[in-house]
Amino acid sequence: MRIGLDAMGGDFAPKAAVEGAQQAAKELGTTDSVVLFGDEDQLRAFMQPEDYQGGKLEIVHTPEYVGMGDHPTKAISHKPNSSIFKGFRHLKAGEIDAFAGAGNTGAMLVGAVYILNQIPGIIRPAITSILPKIDGSTGIILDVGLNPDAKPDVLYQYAILGSLYAIHVFGIEKPKIALLNIGAEEEKGNINTQAAFRTMKDSIDFNFTGNIEANELFTGNADVVICDGFAGNIVLKEAEGIYNLIKNQGISNAYFERFNYENYGGSPILGVNGIAVVGHGMSSPLAIKNMILHAGEMYRSNLDSKIRTTINQ
Amino acid sequence: MRIGLDAMGGDFAPKAAVEGAQQAAKELGTTDSVVLFGDEDQLRAFMQPEDYQGGKLEIVHTPEYVGMGDHPTKAISHKPNSSIFKGFRHLKAGEIDAFAGAGNTGAMLVGAVYILNQIPGIIRPAITSILPKIDGSTGIILDVGLNPDAKPDVLYQYAILGSLYAIHVFGIEKPKIALLNIGAEEEKGNINTQAAFRTMKDSIDFNFTGNIEANELFTGNADVVICDGFAGNIVLKEAEGIYNLIKNQGISNAYFERFNYENYGGSPILGVNGIAVVGHGMSSPLAIKNMILHAGEMYRSNLDSKIRTTINQ
Repeated sequence: MRIGLDAMGGDFAPKAAVEGAQQAAKELGTTDSVVLFGDEDQLRAFMQPEDYQGGKLEIVHTPEYVGMGDHPTKAISHKPNSSIFKGFRHLKAGEIDAFAGAGNTGAMLVGAVYILNQIPGIIRPAITSILPKIDGSTGIILDVGLNPDAKPDVLYQYAILGSLYAIHVFGIEKPKIALLNIGAEEEKGNINTQAAFRTMKDSIDFNFTGNIEANELFTGNADVVICDGFAGNIVLKEAEGIYNLIKNQGISNAYFERFNYENYGGSPILGVNGIAVVGHGMSSPLAIKNMILHAGEMYRSNLDSKIRTTINQ
Repeated sequence: MRIGLDAMGGDFAPKAAVEGAQQAAKELGTTDSVVLFGDEDQLRAFMQPEDYQGGKLEIVHTPEYVGMGDHPTKAISHKPNSSIFKGFRHLKAGEIDAFAGAGNTGAMLVGAVYILNQIPGIIRPAITSILPKIDGSTGIILDVGLNPDAKPDVLYQYAILGSLYAIHVFGIEKPKIALLNIGAEEEKGNINTQAAFRTMKDSIDFNFTGNIEANELFTGNADVVICDGFAGNIVLKEAEGIYNLIKNQGISNAYFERFNYENYGGSPILGVNGIAVVGHGMSSPLAIKNMILHAGEMYRSNLDSKIRTTINQ
């Protein structure tokens, strides 16, 4: 297994990226590699001797990189040899098995959609994030920002994507799929969620359990929560904001530590041809490590091919 | 000042309602009253001797009440003499100065809109809630559930309502108004927030400071956050859910205690003729007390007449 990393991506790159990659490599098998895309000289400066059993580090030199201020769609034509876009081309060519990056999120999404392309039949890809549940389990929520105006047909397909994720990545046999809404009853919500409920309620494509309200996200029994990218991004960022306040107040708590993005590392993009994982801009080495390992887990789940098969049934 | 209370409203009514009313009365002036709407015999059973300086308790007997399961718009015609609707009619007739209730939320909203009526020129009323800020200040957010599909013209008016609230209730001279969105830049968001941003950005009706993301709700410098009722309800309920988890984890923290709805008691309905405050169904006596005191504060601010004047300028 060869996992690509945008080693120039993230606020603390390339140092944090290289350190995180090396930590991940230690936990991988001896036939695995982490492939760093970035400026070779800069990367080598941070590499430590590989005095461990585990995966290897490799470097693919890229002479340029996409900055946080670069416009994503301009960057793909102006900086084709940047670490992000070269990484995605390597993934498309099968030279790596997954690609992860904590840099310019828009450029990561542009790379996923324009280089890997959407799986045929997918209306819109989605980004997922995790929901740390109080019972110890972990749910997912999608979309968390790729499609702020996802319509009922897109939401219906997100339910299929999320269900496949829960089955193949989490190993849940019959995942419970809920629609994020502002009331429990079918007639509650905005026009979009009301219509989405009607399309989902008799679905045989997934196990729909009805609406979920935001106060139940971490306590309810939903394995997968479906919403448009506007609502999902608000859910994600509010949780992040409150987690930061919990830390700010000096509170140390094992449950809330599961809200720390460092511990899950990144958000997969579902619905494209290939495994792509987007990380938080502020990623530490720990976050980078976990993002790489999660990308490996996604690759082993073979989720993109499972999605391709299911969507085209 | 005479503040009406639906004494049959809330999960622990009438006991919690009467106890809360009596606690509120102790903090009111000797010319003030709390007017309880409900079954007189039931209410008297919970009333304690008024052995204190302060406001009086009065009872307006109502032979019926709206249950939590009653359909709000049916209830207004089927149960006209219920505590909620009789209370609103007393408010409309000027026999009380404000009306608060923790019962069936839908019925409270129906009463506010169909008995008090919207202020002429108001497209849609809104419900507000508070944002406890880490710097010790308090922001507000609206709408938190009345209009899940609020369009840009409605959002623009919410900004006016929220600005007036911050000026006249909080005493902030030039409140900062922000639009809840999923990115800082103007072009970010869904179609609705993009359009709303364009209408707001050059406004001279309020002090627009741009977009705010959900991770900044409790740390950013916005006094008033504007959103549709769908997004606002999610923000409110997610905060409530995480507050419950903080309690569940046995964490005691003065800042997070400000998320406890008991401490602010209720959410005012802005844009109707009169002062109406909606409480949480699970309201304790403390929550009822604070809801009544907040209704009194709203009345003294004269906010509804300030709104009437501004909207019709």
